[in-house]
Amino acid sequence: MNGIGARRWAFAAGRVPLQSRGPEPLFTSRDEFALLNTGDALANVRLTVLYARREPVGPYRVGVAPRRLRRLRVNDLIFPEAVRLGEPYALLFESDRPVVVQCARQDTRRRENAGFCANAWGE
Amino acid sequence: MNGIGARRWAFAAGRVPLQSRGPEPLFTSRDEFALLNTGDALANVRLTVLYARREPVGPYRVGVAPRRLRRLRVNDLIFPEAVRLGEPYALLFESDRPVVVQCARQDTRRRENAGFCANAWGE
Amino acid sequence: MNGIGARRWAFAAGRVPLQSRGPEPLFTSRDEFALLNTGDALANVRLTVLYARREPVGPYRVGVAPRRLRRLRVNDLIFPEAVRLGEPYALLFESDRPVVVQCARQDTRRRENAGFCANAWGE
Amino acid sequence: MNGIGARRWAFAAGRVPLQSRGPEPLFTSRDEFALLNTGDALANVRLTVLYARREPVGPYRVGVAPRRLRRLRVNDLIFPEAVRLGEPYALLFESDRPVVVQCARQDTRRRENAGFCANAWGE
Repeated sequence: MNGIGARRWAFAAGRVPLQSRGPEPLFTSRDEFALLNTGDALANVRLTVLYARREPVGPYRVGVAPRRLRRLRVNDLIFPEAVRLGEPYALLFESDRPVVVQCARQDTRRRENAGFCANAWGE
Repeated sequence: MNGIGARRWAFAAGRVPLQSRGPEPLFTSRDEFALLNTGDALANVRLTVLYARREPVGPYRVGVAPRRLRRLRVNDLIFPEAVRLGEPYALLFESDRPVVVQCARQDTRRRENAGFCANAWGE
Repeated sequence: MNGIGARRWAFAAGRVPLQSRGPEPLFTSRDEFALLNTGDALANVRLTVLYARREPVGPYRVGVAPRRLRRLRVNDLIFPEAVRLGEPYALLFESDRPVVVQCARQDTRRRENAGFCANAWGE
Repeated sequence: MNGIGARRWAFAAGRVPLQSRGPEPLFTSRDEFALLNTGDALANVRLTVLYARREPVGPYRVGVAPRRLRRLRVNDLIFPEAVRLGEPYALLFESDRPVVVQCARQDTRRRENAGFCANAWGE
């Protein structure tokens, strides 16, 4: 099947809480991105993290295998440097093939809040 | 009226909790998809479930009658095989006519959380 | 300014809870739609309610004044007939001028849950 | 890199609660907008606030530096006048360069509810 989606995506409303509660994993509240590649070839995705008061950091490089979903925790973006905690951030995704990107915020500080899901802007 | 929507949709951020609380139905926390066909003819929809570490499963076949809404629980997708619990998944919808697809996560583990609603990517 | 938005919108994931808690207004949990007309002329909007197992009902007619926002509670759609409680529904909006439609679910059953906001599909 | 996004955005479902709980800042529940400029030049954004029963107010002028994210609290929009509390409002964003706009409602009245994130309509 042909790949569905777009090659550029942006998510503007990111934030990784500085403090968190509950047992491990340490940062129980986090932003998680779902990258979907419905096509037949590997999608090479470059991520750039943008901030309010510093230069963009990147690229972070992520591959999404053909016909596969990849869940990516922002806390796992550590090279070239970790995403800053407690600071608003944005993410730009640039892929060489169409992918679909959604944000699934996992907020497990309380059992009562199972998080939410938001779309990135794709074009 | 002419049908509104798109023929291909993708939802990347799916997850059916492995454990749940509360009385029946057994899986009180679930992803539910709303498929809307505003057109005058039956829409034949093929669903494919994509995972992180296995081949896609499908197609699951679903019909949406003309001028009707169809709510589809992911837990009800059992042929050719049930959607894996506790594992992130994505859904690809391919329809022969325009439909509108939205995800309505029903999280009834606690009364305090009535879930959320997210859009799929349509094109 | 020229009007921003689209002429046709659909929201597929509607549901008005059959039972609710708390003091009046009686139905504290409800779907509410925000219709925005940024243009210089009145927008005449026709709403159609679609269900899973019955014929569509409508049109409901709503006007949105120029340069105005209109909040519309689904519970207020009573002519030609009230929207069915406890039953999934979808809403189709057809406007003669561009408008922007978003859904703001007000879930006030518990103070802990302030609801959510979802986009309709516009085209 | 070239800027991603759109020049006109609208968010229809705004509301700043009249009363709030918890320590300062005074309005702990608020709408916050994330404006992302991935391009190489300053983006000049004009905001207009629209209401149900009064004339639009604006423009509020906001600059978003190149390669920067800007978080904007609705409560900070005070010139030409503060956004009305407890009243539904909509926001129109008009930028001279492509930006991405998302709404991140911060609802900190209770720890259990970390808010949600919604897309504006971009075109």
